[in-house]
Amino acid sequence: MSHLKHVAIAGATGAVGVEMLRCLEQRNFPVGQLTLLASARSAGKTVKFKGTDVTIKELKADSFEGVDIALFSAGGGISKEFIPHAVKAGAVVVDNSSAYRMDDSVPLVVPEINAEDVKKHKGIIANPNCTTAITLMALWPLHQAFGVKRLFASSYQAVSGTGAQAIEELERQTREWAKAERKWDDVRLPADQVKVYPHQIAFNALPHVDSFLDSGYTKEEMKMENEGRKIMHHPTLRASVTCVRVPVFRAHSVAVSAEFEKPVTVEAAYEVLRTAKGLDLVDDPTLKKYPLALDVAGKDNCAVGRLRLDCALDNGLAFWVAGDQLLKGAALNAVQIAECLV
Amino acid sequence: MSHLKHVAIAGATGAVGVEMLRCLEQRNFPVGQLTLLASARSAGKTVKFKGTDVTIKELKADSFEGVDIALFSAGGGISKEFIPHAVKAGAVVVDNSSAYRMDDSVPLVVPEINAEDVKKHKGIIANPNCTTAITLMALWPLHQAFGVKRLFASSYQAVSGTGAQAIEELERQTREWAKAERKWDDVRLPADQVKVYPHQIAFNALPHVDSFLDSGYTKEEMKMENEGRKIMHHPTLRASVTCVRVPVFRAHSVAVSAEFEKPVTVEAAYEVLRTAKGLDLVDDPTLKKYPLALDVAGKDNCAVGRLRLDCALDNGLAFWVAGDQLLKGAALNAVQIAECLV
Repeated sequence: MSHLKHVAIAGATGAVGVEMLRCLEQRNFPVGQLTLLASARSAGKTVKFKGTDVTIKELKADSFEGVDIALFSAGGGISKEFIPHAVKAGAVVVDNSSAYRMDDSVPLVVPEINAEDVKKHKGIIANPNCTTAITLMALWPLHQAFGVKRLFASSYQAVSGTGAQAIEELERQTREWAKAERKWDDVRLPADQVKVYPHQIAFNALPHVDSFLDSGYTKEEMKMENEGRKIMHHPTLRASVTCVRVPVFRAHSVAVSAEFEKPVTVEAAYEVLRTAKGLDLVDDPTLKKYPLALDVAGKDNCAVGRLRLDCALDNGLAFWVAGDQLLKGAALNAVQIAECLV
Repeated sequence: MSHLKHVAIAGATGAVGVEMLRCLEQRNFPVGQLTLLASARSAGKTVKFKGTDVTIKELKADSFEGVDIALFSAGGGISKEFIPHAVKAGAVVVDNSSAYRMDDSVPLVVPEINAEDVKKHKGIIANPNCTTAITLMALWPLHQAFGVKRLFASSYQAVSGTGAQAIEELERQTREWAKAERKWDDVRLPADQVKVYPHQIAFNALPHVDSFLDSGYTKEEMKMENEGRKIMHHPTLRASVTCVRVPVFRAHSVAVSAEFEKPVTVEAAYEVLRTAKGLDLVDDPTLKKYPLALDVAGKDNCAVGRLRLDCALDNGLAFWVAGDQLLKGAALNAVQIAECLV
């Protein structure tokens, strides 16, 4: 590879694809040539990159000729279909879908945690689940200091995690309620307003993210344990998670109770969190300061706060972590992985 | 007491007071005389009860002459100030505030759980915290069958729990965003739109309900352990809770992981939950059925679902419970306690 790279984005018009482009630009990634790929529907449109118009092309099997690095964020089906072609053409792929994450031959990477795993790639590197990545940004420094055994977590996930159509759905449902001059106790919208999610998301909380497994957990909920084990090289980690979609646009929050091998104190936890990369410690309840979805939206760093000795665990900490789902939860982490490659 | 009671509501114009009135009407409570009390600001207004106009009076120390049962829902300060007068005048008080809940001489009651405690009252019976009451509706039958040891819970709390002004705040903030034709990535409102909560509630998740304790938990979070112990007569219960306000109007949802003494199965749990009073089992993920805030709003029964063997506990169950904060979380439970008195 030369210094300047030929970078492709598959899914360039999606909620994450747009952020990938922004991250490449803002982080001054050494882009020599840029190929933006999307469905036939979007082909022909142009988007700006560093002041220049780039025309979007239709994603095809032969789209990857000469591409050095391909960032995929167009869903698991597209990844399964097109990534083999990209790899065959000689590109290294960073895949934001769940398609390859648990494949033993594919590194799953959060650069602040296991950047060295990037080196083991055989053409594909997987970008982790958004809620998992954001949670691990706070859990990893604590794990290094105290050794995490298990965790209980509940998520407050933004609609951006489902993509552009879901963002539009929350916008549309909210405007529909406001437009109709309905009152607070008349918030259920007509069934034809519910398209992307199985139930109305505006003014609701949906305990259903990704599909259900026979165990009763959703796939999303098990990603914390499965991907957490792989990223942290911690095969015995246990994680019981409830993933919930809330009417928030772009940042996820997670409430965590974590049990550790070693005794913990809030002060010792502060010590390791304060110096953790990519993480801000925001924890001053007396000043009403704690991580908020609205505050981390658009920010690269995740934020952790509400730290306290867990009152139902012996060596436990409870905390609250929030992060931009489109950035650290997706596009930023993918571009950081690409940076490890150059 | 005669068959028909003289009932007073202190805080009759508040979000909970209005529901108390509705519950008395709908449940055909034997009301002989009705005294509606509120602040001087509301005095003189009229509200309908069974088709008749009732004029609201100003709450004063001498408002309780001849009152048999007084339902209080006007905040802890008002309860502390006026309940002694009501008791002295001979009324039995059901207090929805937290003022007397942990007082040893005051029963704290969820009628489906500990109705018999009502008999021990000395003039005051306390109505529990909303999130606690809703969670216990599902936890109590499981506790009876399997013996709960500890739980980890995260709440998704509606703004109605803060009262009428908070409902207005979410309405206003949402309309402000919609009116301004802002986009999904431009949701932060001007500071003058933030009045009731310390931060914007629309399109956000606030990990801050009630005030902070030195331990780092909020008072609201500790109510689950403290009130749960008292209501279930279970002094060793441990509960680690994160209470979070979300942009939902009137029903709370709670994600719970609970550890039990005895081995549990989902089937055995279904068995006890199916026959529990005041609780609906809504649990068919294949049909996308699980409890939803929007579905339980306005309903007397709480709903439990998403039942699964907890993957981070050995004898554990994870579940999701939702209930109308203004009804089972407040007004309904208070009226049910009053029903125990007649």
